[in-house]
Amino acid sequence: MEKEVESLPIVRVTEEGKSQSEDTVVREFPLTIVLNNQELVTLLCSPRDLDYLAIGFLASEGLIKSQDEIKQVTVNDQVGAVHVTTKKGFSGELLLKRLITSGCGRGTSFYSPTTQQELKVESNISLPAPKVMAMVKEFQQRSQVFQATGGVHSAALADSQNIILFQEDIGRHNAIDKIFGECILKDIPTRDRIIITSGRISSEILLKIAKRGVPILISKSAPTNLGVKLAHDLGVTLIGFVRGQRMNIYANEWRVATDG
Amino acid sequence: MEKEVESLPIVRVTEEGKSQSEDTVVREFPLTIVLNNQELVTLLCSPRDLDYLAIGFLASEGLIKSQDEIKQVTVNDQVGAVHVTTKKGFSGELLLKRLITSGCGRGTSFYSPTTQQELKVESNISLPAPKVMAMVKEFQQRSQVFQATGGVHSAALADSQNIILFQEDIGRHNAIDKIFGECILKDIPTRDRIIITSGRISSEILLKIAKRGVPILISKSAPTNLGVKLAHDLGVTLIGFVRGQRMNIYANEWRVATDG
Repeated sequence: MEKEVESLPIVRVTEEGKSQSEDTVVREFPLTIVLNNQELVTLLCSPRDLDYLAIGFLASEGLIKSQDEIKQVTVNDQVGAVHVTTKKGFSGELLLKRLITSGCGRGTSFYSPTTQQELKVESNISLPAPKVMAMVKEFQQRSQVFQATGGVHSAALADSQNIILFQEDIGRHNAIDKIFGECILKDIPTRDRIIITSGRISSEILLKIAKRGVPILISKSAPTNLGVKLAHDLGVTLIGFVRGQRMNIYANEWRVATDG
Repeated sequence: MEKEVESLPIVRVTEEGKSQSEDTVVREFPLTIVLNNQELVTLLCSPRDLDYLAIGFLASEGLIKSQDEIKQVTVNDQVGAVHVTTKKGFSGELLLKRLITSGCGRGTSFYSPTTQQELKVESNISLPAPKVMAMVKEFQQRSQVFQATGGVHSAALADSQNIILFQEDIGRHNAIDKIFGECILKDIPTRDRIIITSGRISSEILLKIAKRGVPILISKSAPTNLGVKLAHDLGVTLIGFVRGQRMNIYANEWRVATDG
């Protein structure tokens, strides 16, 4: 965790007044992603698993789908850059267009009936409700950086039994992108699997999940109405507000089994 | 609040099993900002005060500074667009460059020693610690959409006595941009004033605040190390984790007065 946090002198105020103290805060790192020698974007992120982040970001932008499209990934920690070379090239114009209309907070322009057909998730996986609750509990216990700083989001990949991958990042999109980047680089399947996130569920998160064929999305937090609509349209089971023994299922509830 | 939320049928799971229910979720609205007839960006936001959001976004991107630079602002709710016309034009190339290297999650490339000098905030305003706590309490009580949905961030502008403006949005950047947009359109001063936010404090938030000359930034949440560094560099008092009778002051603590 040393890479991701930093101790700083602060002034603490309590009922007794001011006192000198220390606080652990999360580190914020500017990472530039360079695709085929073209500078693409600078993300602010937690400085860990930068290769996963770069690959996951490119996948979320629809620029790569699988490991065999990638020629080389080089991380340069010193200058804060990841260089990715793909076997196939992309036109500069396409990249520019994607980054302007899509990217963080800029997503829905690519969503159309065609997208819906292409991304529709088919999977018969199901999960008992108590398992959802147990997984979320384990998920929260694993977020060490959050416990130390309160400054990160977390994301995990799970199958119907266990959490397989876990990531934390200052960005809620980055945390999920790191999971998918790791999956692509290590050739770990995402179909018939589950994504858990600490963050709110917007339309962009749904598109990201559906692009990797993930049928179940679990969050501790709230969804938006577009997030719920996309979950219906794309066949994704969307579970929100998992807290203690309770949860809300916003779409495709048939994948969650209860005794009741 | 009707515009910003929607009621949806959901399946609720409790200890007793599944039951049909309803939940109120926050609406997510794609808004395209068109500057001088050039489509600039599509933001996902809460569908309220779209003119404020557009103007605040342009200000945060460094494209406008004050009301007298603006010729016209037209909101088209139906197509989800705000058209802004400025007195002075911008080259397409400049806009493109700004949006790729800056924008949400893509901020630090414009930060340099020159930026630091230009943005340095000078203000002798100070605030008693109990006032900070009282303001944060009032701030939380005002967030109606959050209380109904759990799906938004809030932001406020205050002077040393009262909260003056309050906004909620699904995006933590949007909520602050709406505040600044309203200030610009109504010619409300931001110097010697305070911004309160529900969100985490990254370097981008600090740059946004300093661009409007705001000397005190208060958050319920955590800052990042770059956020703290910029607060020191730019002369901003950064207060985080305000909870009950406690808070952490990360930079320029001299603007917070205690008896102790």
